[in-house]
Amino acid sequence: MERVALIGASMTQFGQRDAWVRELLSEAGLACLDDAGVEPTAIDHLYVSNMASGEFEGQTGIPNALAHDLAAMPAYTARIDQTSSSGGAGVYAAWQSVASGASDMTMLVGGEKMTHRSTAEATDVIASLTHPVEYKHGVTLPSFAGLTARLYLDTYDAPRESLGKVAVKNHANGVDNPHAQFQKEVDLDTVLDSPIVADPLRLYDFCPITDGSAALMFCPESIAREYTDDYVTIEGIGGATDTHVVHERADPTTMGGVVDSSQIAYEMADMDPDDMDIAELHDMFTILEFLQSEDLGFFEKGTGWKAVEEGRTDRDGELPINTSGGLKSKGHPLGASGVAQVYEIYAQLTRTAGNRQVDADVGLACNVGGFGNCVTTTIMEAH
Amino acid sequence: MERVALIGASMTQFGQRDAWVRELLSEAGLACLDDAGVEPTAIDHLYVSNMASGEFEGQTGIPNALAHDLAAMPAYTARIDQTSSSGGAGVYAAWQSVASGASDMTMLVGGEKMTHRSTAEATDVIASLTHPVEYKHGVTLPSFAGLTARLYLDTYDAPRESLGKVAVKNHANGVDNPHAQFQKEVDLDTVLDSPIVADPLRLYDFCPITDGSAALMFCPESIAREYTDDYVTIEGIGGATDTHVVHERADPTTMGGVVDSSQIAYEMADMDPDDMDIAELHDMFTILEFLQSEDLGFFEKGTGWKAVEEGRTDRDGELPINTSGGLKSKGHPLGASGVAQVYEIYAQLTRTAGNRQVDADVGLACNVGGFGNCVTTTIMEAH
Repeated sequence: MERVALIGASMTQFGQRDAWVRELLSEAGLACLDDAGVEPTAIDHLYVSNMASGEFEGQTGIPNALAHDLAAMPAYTARIDQTSSSGGAGVYAAWQSVASGASDMTMLVGGEKMTHRSTAEATDVIASLTHPVEYKHGVTLPSFAGLTARLYLDTYDAPRESLGKVAVKNHANGVDNPHAQFQKEVDLDTVLDSPIVADPLRLYDFCPITDGSAALMFCPESIAREYTDDYVTIEGIGGATDTHVVHERADPTTMGGVVDSSQIAYEMADMDPDDMDIAELHDMFTILEFLQSEDLGFFEKGTGWKAVEEGRTDRDGELPINTSGGLKSKGHPLGASGVAQVYEIYAQLTRTAGNRQVDADVGLACNVGGFGNCVTTTIMEAH
Repeated sequence: MERVALIGASMTQFGQRDAWVRELLSEAGLACLDDAGVEPTAIDHLYVSNMASGEFEGQTGIPNALAHDLAAMPAYTARIDQTSSSGGAGVYAAWQSVASGASDMTMLVGGEKMTHRSTAEATDVIASLTHPVEYKHGVTLPSFAGLTARLYLDTYDAPRESLGKVAVKNHANGVDNPHAQFQKEVDLDTVLDSPIVADPLRLYDFCPITDGSAALMFCPESIAREYTDDYVTIEGIGGATDTHVVHERADPTTMGGVVDSSQIAYEMADMDPDDMDIAELHDMFTILEFLQSEDLGFFEKGTGWKAVEEGRTDRDGELPINTSGGLKSKGHPLGASGVAQVYEIYAQLTRTAGNRQVDADVGLACNVGGFGNCVTTTIMEAH
């Protein structure tokens, strides 16, 4: 199997954008071509990570439209959907395309356009991924998050404030990310006094509804130096599911898909959690950052909240988590989020992360679909 | 690169089904597990080919639901969408998963549930893949087909009757396919006297709206014999796009994506069009069978219609095309169609095609998305 390298990356401004998903994908795609120094006709495979352009905009066939708009034809295209982890699934598809020898140059572009719909409408589109029986009872992802947060706080004697500190940390990181939807600090009182959404979670425990796109360029490592001196390799990658029916899970405070996908990735990379210098986790809700930081093996079960309280995941801590600002402050355009996580690791490992730069040579991205229903974990290394 | 084998296949009854896509996917998936003799927990990757479950049913996240319903967790899952060629794109994704070493056992299940929507509604969902400017002018895929058919007949002096003979041939084949939506012959007069849909094409020039699902099991060839004595290898596979804006094409009677994807597949297989014993083509409209039979190199440009007139693509001809009945009589549940094409080749090559069995050791499937916007071509060989 050929080792796969990342030789370029881009992301658009995240936030409320006056552009359709086609335009956002093109914007990120053109910037990625430019960053990688690759001609569009050199692309063999072009993947688009997107959950719901049909539902949000009434437009399908967007990978083909993108090939057209980038003048990348006859590049092969397909759309990869794994709901909120469509981006991570796209990374896995792009990796497979190069590792299998099918493609010597693969571009992945993830994107979603959501803000033209109301928050209720967008939440309902996302909730369409839940089990029909749970959906009929009015369960949405935020309500799962509230239930799980309550269980976590009770089980592990964690204070409510610790959840709020995830939001405070990630907003502080977002200040230094010029692409982030929110580039402003929030203090703990603001989080704790914000309106209740799903008790005990409040408005600032949730990521926003976002428009945006991000892109990555993949090729065999053997030709990476033809394009750049500073490339990143994918050392490990894995994907896994947990039960689609959330109420069937034995322990809702453990995300089985995170455990299983990361084990595949660690084994492939021949690395341990301790080898990670940096991580981007899927903090769609603050509680998810605790769960993932434990299920990835960074911290003992039930102690993720302490690590945040002690500042160990701050930008100057031992394992900075979500230096990008995370979904919480960077925003969460579904199909783009997993791609943007890898963009952040790429930026950090290539020392192009500007004011938020940390010292890191190995990084991990964990992208979660549904409420942990499907997960991809990617481990990268600087060269 | 490890050579990839097919060790099992299944398809459900195609037609009007009183079941949601989840149920159809499960039905095909369970049958495929049984056919391959594989336990669900042995599946590493599980792909679902589907264009629009969100638009048709308001249900997303169906790959994860399928992993749950088949008890295949923690198998990695993703949905692959390439509009009408989602099935072929799924075959490519499944092939890449095994060829890259990421998975030692991959199941692909394609499916779509459409008949609960009116033909106009379903056609509109499909038309959402067209360029917005073309869509605004009322262009749907059937109207493209009518324009192209007129151009083809005029350019190559082909009689209108030759198009009708595609329908007659494929309906005759469908009689012997117990899974086909239409298992009845039609005569040429019936086709030629049917209502006009998009001049010169009439009702019987079009495939129906269909519910259904089909599934395939992939593994490295090195372990195929542990499961079956009669397996099939994927010798060549390729994908390509043509311009998303159909009116920009220099010659609308040539499908560039078919030409380009098949060249990749032929080169990988080290085979020529003459090596094919059998083919399943994407006859969503009768005219498309002419175009593909030429663009795949089976017949000279402008002579595909003569090959049909002369019976060369009949079941007892030199190159039987669409022994399954094709999309025309078997039906076209979007995400399932490309999978069902490969199912047919698999059935023929493993000599399990019943009354429609022909003598074939090498076969080709060509799955077309949009109006030739994106195409995958797969070449298979018996072992």
